[in-house]
Amino acid sequence: MEFSAQLQVYRHDAEVALDRLVPPAATPPARLHAAMRYSLEAGGKRLRPVLVLAAAARNGRETEALAAAVAIECVHTYSLIHDDLPAMDNDDLRRGRPTCHKAFDEATAILAGDALLTHAFAVLASHYGDRPALAIALVRELSVAAGSTALVGGQMEDIAAEKAPATREQVEFIHAGKTAAMIAASLVCGGLVGGAPTAEIEALRRLGRELGLAFQVVDDVLDATATSTELGKTAGKDANAQKATMVRVLGLDGARERAKAHTAAALAGLAQLPGENTFLRSLVESLEHRGN
Amino acid sequence: MEFSAQLQVYRHDAEVALDRLVPPAATPPARLHAAMRYSLEAGGKRLRPVLVLAAAARNGRETEALAAAVAIECVHTYSLIHDDLPAMDNDDLRRGRPTCHKAFDEATAILAGDALLTHAFAVLASHYGDRPALAIALVRELSVAAGSTALVGGQMEDIAAEKAPATREQVEFIHAGKTAAMIAASLVCGGLVGGAPTAEIEALRRLGRELGLAFQVVDDVLDATATSTELGKTAGKDANAQKATMVRVLGLDGARERAKAHTAAALAGLAQLPGENTFLRSLVESLEHRGN
Repeated sequence: MEFSAQLQVYRHDAEVALDRLVPPAATPPARLHAAMRYSLEAGGKRLRPVLVLAAAARNGRETEALAAAVAIECVHTYSLIHDDLPAMDNDDLRRGRPTCHKAFDEATAILAGDALLTHAFAVLASHYGDRPALAIALVRELSVAAGSTALVGGQMEDIAAEKAPATREQVEFIHAGKTAAMIAASLVCGGLVGGAPTAEIEALRRLGRELGLAFQVVDDVLDATATSTELGKTAGKDANAQKATMVRVLGLDGARERAKAHTAAALAGLAQLPGENTFLRSLVESLEHRGN
Repeated sequence: MEFSAQLQVYRHDAEVALDRLVPPAATPPARLHAAMRYSLEAGGKRLRPVLVLAAAARNGRETEALAAAVAIECVHTYSLIHDDLPAMDNDDLRRGRPTCHKAFDEATAILAGDALLTHAFAVLASHYGDRPALAIALVRELSVAAGSTALVGGQMEDIAAEKAPATREQVEFIHAGKTAAMIAASLVCGGLVGGAPTAEIEALRRLGRELGLAFQVVDDVLDATATSTELGKTAGKDANAQKATMVRVLGLDGARERAKAHTAAALAGLAQLPGENTFLRSLVESLEHRGN
């Protein structure tokens, strides 16, 4: 199948699974479940679930990987809801719609994020319960990637670095935590469901780190160059908030160079994985040149 | 061992395990880990970890249950940090000290809560990895008890019910979610680590629900009758915020009757469990007459 058609299939499958594995909006308390679904259903690129499915598809196990893809997207969406809160990045727009705390209220948004994070682990426990060793490997992977030294830690450093002098190394630490850890975990979880051998799992992890670093640098560039309409979120926020971005420390051209270098490293890592990996190659290449 | 001496041993063991299984405060990002530990180390009754250990001790497995006790206390502490936030209950005092967002700031408190919740699952995955079926049973139990239809759902309803008319049934729904679910899960997790048979696990769950309902009604009574110094948290908050409490719907005497009835039901449930269960009996009885 051609790349963009396959991408649409993965996205569609992930969205059907999200709908199936997250409680209906009318589940009591309805306001909470409506808020969880409001943010989940806003769409977005579904990059992380697509990576889970593509990595599992290397061993023909993409259907089995749907629950892992849902868990990863629940964690990603929770992190966006909390990042957008007034006490954090204070953003009004996300995926082209009002942020969760704007559409509902702050308390509901905090709780919807909490519930999505918790639900991710419930999904893993209930859907891989008949393969407990796999289930617990997935829980371990996701809890570390989402934890205080990765996703949450990166967001903490991101806020702490506002308005302070920053170096390329600091920015890369932030990017590794807040973005690359979960992108690497997506590929690793797909590999785990697929039953890939340890060497391949570690190759997927390295590839995911480079892809994640590339992805976040491109995000920094887009924040500085694209419009809010193009992005579906408020553009120019990084400069206004004096965020520690790669654009701030290296300039636009320097940041683009970093994106190119990380993309090249991801492609080199991909070349070491057995099999064709055509879809993943096209995906890595397309993300460097995306417009949102 | 006498009840109060045994209680001290369980508390002490739980606190040593917390110190061992949560990253040191200096772990980067240090501000985040300092905030996590600030709230964890504030003390409190450690009721939930004590219940985990006491339930596991029925089968002589309390040492093995320490990691589960830590996971439960991480989830409980996260829920307190988020509940205290300005957008939620907006409280300045907890366990006799400034709340997390007062001692640090709101963003740090949100992230410290997120990280503690995530860490709970990391602890379960890493410490029961050699018993994957047990590990995944613990993850399932904790993720459901902490999820959108229990802990988080109860907090959502608690906020929604402020300033609105409430019935005893509504208040009991809130109490079941925000308090009883995690207290039941504590006993169940201890039972699971202990290898208790399914019938005993379900008996522990019923006992935990009644104990949790009793505990929260006593909390409502104390909020209306004790001082802030006695409680270590702001007294009289429920009435000020027009919370839907059992005191509001039944009055003080009616609430005390409910506490007595739930305590009696918990003791009746306990009597159906094989063995002596002397410690658990004393614990259930002591909680009805506690002063904070």
